[in-house]
Amino acid sequence: MTSDALTFRRARRDDLEAIIALLADDDLGQSRERVSTPTDPAYLSAFDAIQSDPNQLLAILEDDAGVAGCLQISFIPGLSRLGMWRGQIESVRIARRRRGDGLGRTMIEWAIEQCRIKHCGLVQLTSDKTRTDALRFYESLGFVSSHEGLKLAL
Amino acid sequence: MTSDALTFRRARRDDLEAIIALLADDDLGQSRERVSTPTDPAYLSAFDAIQSDPNQLLAILEDDAGVAGCLQISFIPGLSRLGMWRGQIESVRIARRRRGDGLGRTMIEWAIEQCRIKHCGLVQLTSDKTRTDALRFYESLGFVSSHEGLKLAL
Repeated sequence: MTSDALTFRRARRDDLEAIIALLADDDLGQSRERVSTPTDPAYLSAFDAIQSDPNQLLAILEDDAGVAGCLQISFIPGLSRLGMWRGQIESVRIARRRRGDGLGRTMIEWAIEQCRIKHCGLVQLTSDKTRTDALRFYESLGFVSSHEGLKLAL
Repeated sequence: MTSDALTFRRARRDDLEAIIALLADDDLGQSRERVSTPTDPAYLSAFDAIQSDPNQLLAILEDDAGVAGCLQISFIPGLSRLGMWRGQIESVRIARRRRGDGLGRTMIEWAIEQCRIKHCGLVQLTSDKTRTDALRFYESLGFVSSHEGLKLAL
């Protein structure tokens, strides 16, 4: 890992273009996203929905060159397990220029800490079964593949 | 299925005791929940957190005898997939007296419809890998087991 300063912070509107570029720069993401200037209005309204929901945290990891990573944490209240809150991690990306740098681990450890701060009893995420490297990575951080992740496209 | 009237509605505070009993009446749930009178304060604050979050829907299915089923839907805004909303289903239970009655299917179909109404592009849930009947059930409704569901207890 290089020694430059790393900062985690809540994403701002002017980070949006860089975040969308990160989401798109991915084997599965490239066919799902639309990188354009101006930014597609669908992303703008999604961003507003995230920012106006106090239980959503869209965060970026910033280094000297700009946005180096992003992820979203959803803090989900629930009755199950004695009213336990869950932290759910989604849309994790590391900029190509920083991959293999250990930054993914730093970022997920930061996310887990945010879940602790919010008194979550569980951190959860799903990962596409074809992302075998990602699965090994999360298991190395202590995550257990105890569940099937089922999706229904509407 | 019996021919009595079935109603879906948002859960109220006075349904809480019946919902907790449902959550507890389950192979995995029995060791995780606490059925007591008065209701454990942890459930009361979780219930308040759910009700005050416009992106959470804790719903019950009611028949002539009372609460026959429950589930929670979390509507999650996100940037990925062109700013797509997800509907996430959690804590699905059918009362023992109504199991094998087809009510689970009715309830999940209702939940999927709520996700459509909220313009979600995807409905998702995770199910413990030991719940093989549940997995077959969700697959019969069109869900695809494309993801691993990873959990980290804090």
